[in-house]
Amino acid sequence: MARGKKRRYVYFFGGGKAEGKAGMKALLGGKGANLAEMTSLGLPVPPGFTISTQACAEYYEAGKRWPVGLKAEVDRALERLEKVTKKTFGYGDNPLLVSVRSGAAVSMPGMMDTVLNLGLNSATLEALIRKTGNERFAWDAFRRFIQMFGDVVMGVEHEAFEHCLDGVKEEAGVKLDTDLGVEDLKKVVARYKALYKRHTGEVFPEDPRIQLEKAISAVFGSWNNPRAIRYRELNDIRGLLGTAVNVQTMVFGNMGDRSGTGVCFTRNPSTGENKFYGEFLMNAQGEDVVAGIRTPEPIEALKKVMPAAYKKLYQIRGILEKHYKDMQDIEFTIEDGALYMLQTRTGKRTAAAAVKIAVDMVKERLIDRKTALLRINPNDLDQLLHPQFDPRALKAAKPITKGLPASPGAATGQLVFSAEAAEKAAAKGKDVILCRIETSPEDIGGMDAARGILTARGGMTSHAAVVARGMGKCCVAGAGTLRIDYKARKMSVEGRAFREGDWISLDGSTGFVYAGKIDTVDPKLSGNFATIMKWADQYRKLGVRTNADTPHDTEVAVKFGAEGIGLCRTEHMFFEGRRITSFRRLILVADTVKRLEAELAAEEDPKRRKAIAAELRGPRKQYDRALRELLPLQRRDFEGIFAALKGRPCTIRLLDPPLHEFLPHDVAGQREMAKAMGVTPEEIRRRVEELAEFNPMLGHRGCRLGLTFPEVSEMQVRAIIEAAANCKKKRIPVKPEIMIPLVGNVAELRLARERAEKVIARVLKERGLTKKQLPYLIGTMIEVPRAAVTADQIATEAEFFSFGTNDLTQMGCGFSRDDAGRFLGEYVKLGIYEYDPFQVLDTEGVGRLIETAVRLGRGVRKGLKLGICGEHGGEPRSIAFAHKVGLTYVSCSPFRVPIARLAAAHAALRES
Amino acid sequence: MARGKKRRYVYFFGGGKAEGKAGMKALLGGKGANLAEMTSLGLPVPPGFTISTQACAEYYEAGKRWPVGLKAEVDRALERLEKVTKKTFGYGDNPLLVSVRSGAAVSMPGMMDTVLNLGLNSATLEALIRKTGNERFAWDAFRRFIQMFGDVVMGVEHEAFEHCLDGVKEEAGVKLDTDLGVEDLKKVVARYKALYKRHTGEVFPEDPRIQLEKAISAVFGSWNNPRAIRYRELNDIRGLLGTAVNVQTMVFGNMGDRSGTGVCFTRNPSTGENKFYGEFLMNAQGEDVVAGIRTPEPIEALKKVMPAAYKKLYQIRGILEKHYKDMQDIEFTIEDGALYMLQTRTGKRTAAAAVKIAVDMVKERLIDRKTALLRINPNDLDQLLHPQFDPRALKAAKPITKGLPASPGAATGQLVFSAEAAEKAAAKGKDVILCRIETSPEDIGGMDAARGILTARGGMTSHAAVVARGMGKCCVAGAGTLRIDYKARKMSVEGRAFREGDWISLDGSTGFVYAGKIDTVDPKLSGNFATIMKWADQYRKLGVRTNADTPHDTEVAVKFGAEGIGLCRTEHMFFEGRRITSFRRLILVADTVKRLEAELAAEEDPKRRKAIAAELRGPRKQYDRALRELLPLQRRDFEGIFAALKGRPCTIRLLDPPLHEFLPHDVAGQREMAKAMGVTPEEIRRRVEELAEFNPMLGHRGCRLGLTFPEVSEMQVRAIIEAAANCKKKRIPVKPEIMIPLVGNVAELRLARERAEKVIARVLKERGLTKKQLPYLIGTMIEVPRAAVTADQIATEAEFFSFGTNDLTQMGCGFSRDDAGRFLGEYVKLGIYEYDPFQVLDTEGVGRLIETAVRLGRGVRKGLKLGICGEHGGEPRSIAFAHKVGLTYVSCSPFRVPIARLAAAHAALRES
Repeated sequence: MARGKKRRYVYFFGGGKAEGKAGMKALLGGKGANLAEMTSLGLPVPPGFTISTQACAEYYEAGKRWPVGLKAEVDRALERLEKVTKKTFGYGDNPLLVSVRSGAAVSMPGMMDTVLNLGLNSATLEALIRKTGNERFAWDAFRRFIQMFGDVVMGVEHEAFEHCLDGVKEEAGVKLDTDLGVEDLKKVVARYKALYKRHTGEVFPEDPRIQLEKAISAVFGSWNNPRAIRYRELNDIRGLLGTAVNVQTMVFGNMGDRSGTGVCFTRNPSTGENKFYGEFLMNAQGEDVVAGIRTPEPIEALKKVMPAAYKKLYQIRGILEKHYKDMQDIEFTIEDGALYMLQTRTGKRTAAAAVKIAVDMVKERLIDRKTALLRINPNDLDQLLHPQFDPRALKAAKPITKGLPASPGAATGQLVFSAEAAEKAAAKGKDVILCRIETSPEDIGGMDAARGILTARGGMTSHAAVVARGMGKCCVAGAGTLRIDYKARKMSVEGRAFREGDWISLDGSTGFVYAGKIDTVDPKLSGNFATIMKWADQYRKLGVRTNADTPHDTEVAVKFGAEGIGLCRTEHMFFEGRRITSFRRLILVADTVKRLEAELAAEEDPKRRKAIAAELRGPRKQYDRALRELLPLQRRDFEGIFAALKGRPCTIRLLDPPLHEFLPHDVAGQREMAKAMGVTPEEIRRRVEELAEFNPMLGHRGCRLGLTFPEVSEMQVRAIIEAAANCKKKRIPVKPEIMIPLVGNVAELRLARERAEKVIARVLKERGLTKKQLPYLIGTMIEVPRAAVTADQIATEAEFFSFGTNDLTQMGCGFSRDDAGRFLGEYVKLGIYEYDPFQVLDTEGVGRLIETAVRLGRGVRKGLKLGICGEHGGEPRSIAFAHKVGLTYVSCSPFRVPIARLAAAHAALRES
Repeated sequence: MARGKKRRYVYFFGGGKAEGKAGMKALLGGKGANLAEMTSLGLPVPPGFTISTQACAEYYEAGKRWPVGLKAEVDRALERLEKVTKKTFGYGDNPLLVSVRSGAAVSMPGMMDTVLNLGLNSATLEALIRKTGNERFAWDAFRRFIQMFGDVVMGVEHEAFEHCLDGVKEEAGVKLDTDLGVEDLKKVVARYKALYKRHTGEVFPEDPRIQLEKAISAVFGSWNNPRAIRYRELNDIRGLLGTAVNVQTMVFGNMGDRSGTGVCFTRNPSTGENKFYGEFLMNAQGEDVVAGIRTPEPIEALKKVMPAAYKKLYQIRGILEKHYKDMQDIEFTIEDGALYMLQTRTGKRTAAAAVKIAVDMVKERLIDRKTALLRINPNDLDQLLHPQFDPRALKAAKPITKGLPASPGAATGQLVFSAEAAEKAAAKGKDVILCRIETSPEDIGGMDAARGILTARGGMTSHAAVVARGMGKCCVAGAGTLRIDYKARKMSVEGRAFREGDWISLDGSTGFVYAGKIDTVDPKLSGNFATIMKWADQYRKLGVRTNADTPHDTEVAVKFGAEGIGLCRTEHMFFEGRRITSFRRLILVADTVKRLEAELAAEEDPKRRKAIAAELRGPRKQYDRALRELLPLQRRDFEGIFAALKGRPCTIRLLDPPLHEFLPHDVAGQREMAKAMGVTPEEIRRRVEELAEFNPMLGHRGCRLGLTFPEVSEMQVRAIIEAAANCKKKRIPVKPEIMIPLVGNVAELRLARERAEKVIARVLKERGLTKKQLPYLIGTMIEVPRAAVTADQIATEAEFFSFGTNDLTQMGCGFSRDDAGRFLGEYVKLGIYEYDPFQVLDTEGVGRLIETAVRLGRGVRKGLKLGICGEHGGEPRSIAFAHKVGLTYVSCSPFRVPIARLAAAHAALRES
């Protein structure tokens, strides 16, 4: 608070003038700012005043006391209101009644309800009767006021009032509130007052100034009630001062047949169609519309009922859209034929509507393309990219349980409980939903075959969730009430059983699970959507690539506008039937081969050399055989992906996960593997134990594997280059980029690179090609903090960097992604991290590592190609950071490519 | 190689002049450089020449071919040698015979053996006979030459020659080589030549120039034989060009009774006593002394046998010490009364000798204090700080097995197989050795009670090793041949059984395990040792603190010169009997308490609030009770430590490890705990499983625990401040420094600090003290990479930083310390890391994180106190880095404090 300068708490509006305006939302709340703006526009707004959010903040600072000066300002504003309305507050023939409403800068439905009709007491009640000539209306207004005030301001239970009302209705022998007569209502008022006294220990206040003071304090207090706090948490609302309080002259939509009230959107918020949309109720107050006792009529009907009011309203619709240049959500009341505007705000809309409205408004020259792009929340596009339930079909459905909305979209299919069953059923053309307690890498095939995935355990970053999002496949994870019985092939939810083959439907955007079949509708990517994407591409500077491991994913991503693959993980390719057997055979003997080779190299004694060589022969043969089997399979994978890319660049990461991830950890799986390998299950178990690690995240994986088992990397590099050569022969252009994972030290990269280049030279020679004819790059992930801080050294050996932000976050922050759930939620609550750093890139910390790497890397290699390939690559805030630090591209799962394109455009537009 | 300038490969010495000098070790090897130096000093050195290490390097570069020009240089040097010696090579009446020896810059006993008598052939043999008049000597020289040449140069198996020789001895009916007559020796020569041809396919070369060429190539080749490579690996020898080759005129110690040979040290290398020390053999060549067939006599005896030669030798001893200003290890030969010097080099010595010699030489004004300090390898001091076996007692002992030398020192005691048994026996005054398959935190008490620790599993960084080093207690770890049977309370080694109570002895410096009792001698820390330490303290700039968790460790460290505690881990204190029960009780209910408290806070409904509060009551009571029990115990711990510190500062780290480390993971332990807690074992098992983490290293630990369970931190802070207040009352000065572990984000520290300060304010108020009267600091560990790169933010809340280099290495490099063994060995071999980064700080990578943190931290808080408290704090190379980047202190285990003091002095001296 600037010293000497008096702070102002109250902003008046009325009589065509206002002290506030639309731009003052932070101070006046959304409602208050827009009431002021509409007043200045000359629209018929009932006069009133807004108490600022600053006053609310100071109320809390002062230990829940009104800040000094507020009382006086409120009094002055009331005086002014009396003058403008020619009414008097609490006395006189034309009594001033007001509404009191909360209104923060961001809409928060969880906060305080409205208090209407404040200012009524025995004296003003009589005046109101005289003035309106409607005794019943006046007594009804009074009983409504006592009830709202008691409930909302004083915390008297709502049910107690309802109980009281029901009693009178019973005594009167009527069913509806509206059937009560004046005498009945007088009885209600008397009983309400008694109820009020019983519950609060005070007499109901007759003095309207005390009523107003208590109501304002209650609004302040509502800012920090548990519901409001929770709402802010859930909706990620931060940095607000508090709530404003709007005190506004009452207008009555329930004053008779020439009165009414309604809510409208200036365009259709569901489809975006440029057509006035909304509904109204005659002879009703706002809460009657919401309560749903009477069915409102569509807004067009008003044209017939009250043509003048409709015409005026329709005009105002046009004025507001031209003024705000956006679709508006408005509230109005008609009192005895006169139209009053009670609210306007930017209307919420579906993603489809957002896209259509943005494109239409550009066509209508209301806004320019930049504004249109910025109007669309990139994350909302997700709705448009996945199948959705047909809204009509959904109406009839009731969810049987709810899990986490782990991967968006809707799916319907027949239940299966194993990956194998999913693949078999899918092969027969069936739509299936794969239901597992949790998934593991062995389930990939089944997940791919299923329409949707349902798990009983695991969070938003569980295997099922991550893989499903990567596949763009609907997934509901961690539905804790499910009981799954693999043996019996059934699941039950609260006693209700479902068996294999039963139809079930999942909504991965909400987490709801439904019994039965629900029709879905496919997304349309043409028309306005395509226009928005085209505009986004005009403005964005960041490239957008995709993380894809299969030709199918690649095709989807290219359709979504991916400019290449930023991360092709080769490990998923190892999990298919035959190859997993080959690879497991290799794993079984790998350490033995390496140990014996080392012994052989160190041994000088010829006799002992011979013995070692003999011992080595068998395992070595198995090792080589496995590699020989894997080579053509990998090559075919890459050929398919290259073909789908049609010449776009493809970053392929060499094998990354630790070997134990490829072995079965359950007894049955081990027994099966033992049979396939011709060894004892005991031997498999021992090998699994040998490979177990205390902290696998920091263990023997990435290039560490490639350096200790170079033949595996060499096989992969050969497969990549042979595939490229084969494509070239078929005149399919290719741009392979070989990526060495988990490098922390330039020497690792140097070695891995040298070995790769030897293989490449050999393949090129075999195919009679030169390096110029088949250009390729070799680069690395930057995911180990050491790599980031020594990026100047690493850049001497790397032709590109790709930031693996998942692992960089794990190591940089010291968080195990699999374990951090235990405290990260609390950390975000405590404000230690603004967002979960696995969802939104921690730009303050991990971001510094990235910035360092960018600076050091580009310092030694100008124009070094830089990308992000963690899951952050598809998250708008993280994309803005990538833009800011000058990365070349982001890479994300296929279904997030459009989101990334728009987010990249946002970043570029916000910068300028 | 500079263009145009001809490189020189050969350096001549002889006739009082030399082309080389002592400073040219890198180029001429140690032996060659010192032969040149001695020649220039006018000492009687047989003339010769040295082929440089550069020639060796170029030999390899050229694919094992002599570099151009080397041949011509060797020929010219031979001509010059002929002139100086007035002998001729390969012909004539006075034939020139030479020795050929390898000699790298660093002594490498694993490399090529010597070839003597090179130049002999049928012609020169005759001349030698004529010249010496000693036919037997000449034939013996020839057969020795063929044997050495065949074995060393041509790779003919040594045993084949010995077999041949044995045959002739048998035929002659003699037992000793010396009993063979001339005719026998002729027969030997003939058979050797045949053997040579059979094995090499070539006739033994008569041409001495071919002999010489082959010998030189063989020396070059020996540089990269597996033995030499292995030796360099094991001894951490890097960066050398190759080996030099020394070709030197032969002198014969075996020419009769006026000839002899010997090896001396200018001072006693074992004790450091300033007394000529060595031994000699008359009528013998060098290898006879080494072979040990005849017993050499002490050097004083030479005074009687050949007084003139002795006098000359004694003079030379003085000249060499004055010249080199260090103790020398010399070799000499007396040929027919004439003394020749064949080698001088800095003598290897024990740590005790190094200390005494350094101090004595300062007293003798040979060197200054700085030089004296730099002469002592800090790591060698370790020998002086632990009990050692009495060398006389050790002579009789034979090891039964060998493990890893995990923690230095010697120990003897009676076997026990459980921590409990160790504590019981120690309480009765028995010396015990605790033998376990591996140790766990529950064994701490027993480890502390034992004289030494022996484990069958685990490496140099296993629990047993790390804890034992911390305690300064002897430990042999991972003795893989041990079979331990806990039930039967016995162990067996290759069939030999040892039972509880049997005596056993461990040498933690070598890893040897002995049966029976071996007397030990205690270290002396006074006298010269104290002098060196005093001098080190004069020069060092780094402070040296210790990592200590008990009053006893603290006392030891203070005795060793620690200036405070840099890391007091509070978790070890939780493992003692009663307190582990209290803490386990807390862990059992902790999550329930937190969950219910959160529910209660969010609940509005009064009825449901009541129900939650009721549910919370029981667990909360248990939780509070545990804290109440722990408080006085912790307080007493701190009081003891503060008292031992006598006013030195004490950095206390709040609880760090994840909770599951405190729970038993075995069935028996869980059953026992269940009984103590009054719950079912199933409940314990479930809790253990709940707390299990995929990557505990990156899990719920450090300040993350403190923030989710603030009451534990608050209890610890209270214990610290109450203990400080109690000490202050007893007039013991205290400087507590509270350290918050695992901070990655300044907000974590801010919160933890605020909470701690509230507790402190409360305690101070209770005790009627002001902050000024009881000053304390609050700071943090820097061990998460994110903390290092945001150190500017963190320093706003931290009064000191302590670098936890163990964890910073784990997270910075992405290495799990427990798992990295699988590839780190290979990484060091491949040169990816110069040293194991857990042993020697990775200054290139982790060092950059530290430098960044130092720069950022001091940037916002001038004079910020900075320390290292990882195990690197006691490692000299890492200490040098700490000095370089300007840290305030290093902290290490008590027994490494003297090492750190000396290493810190080295760092300061090397800088200036």
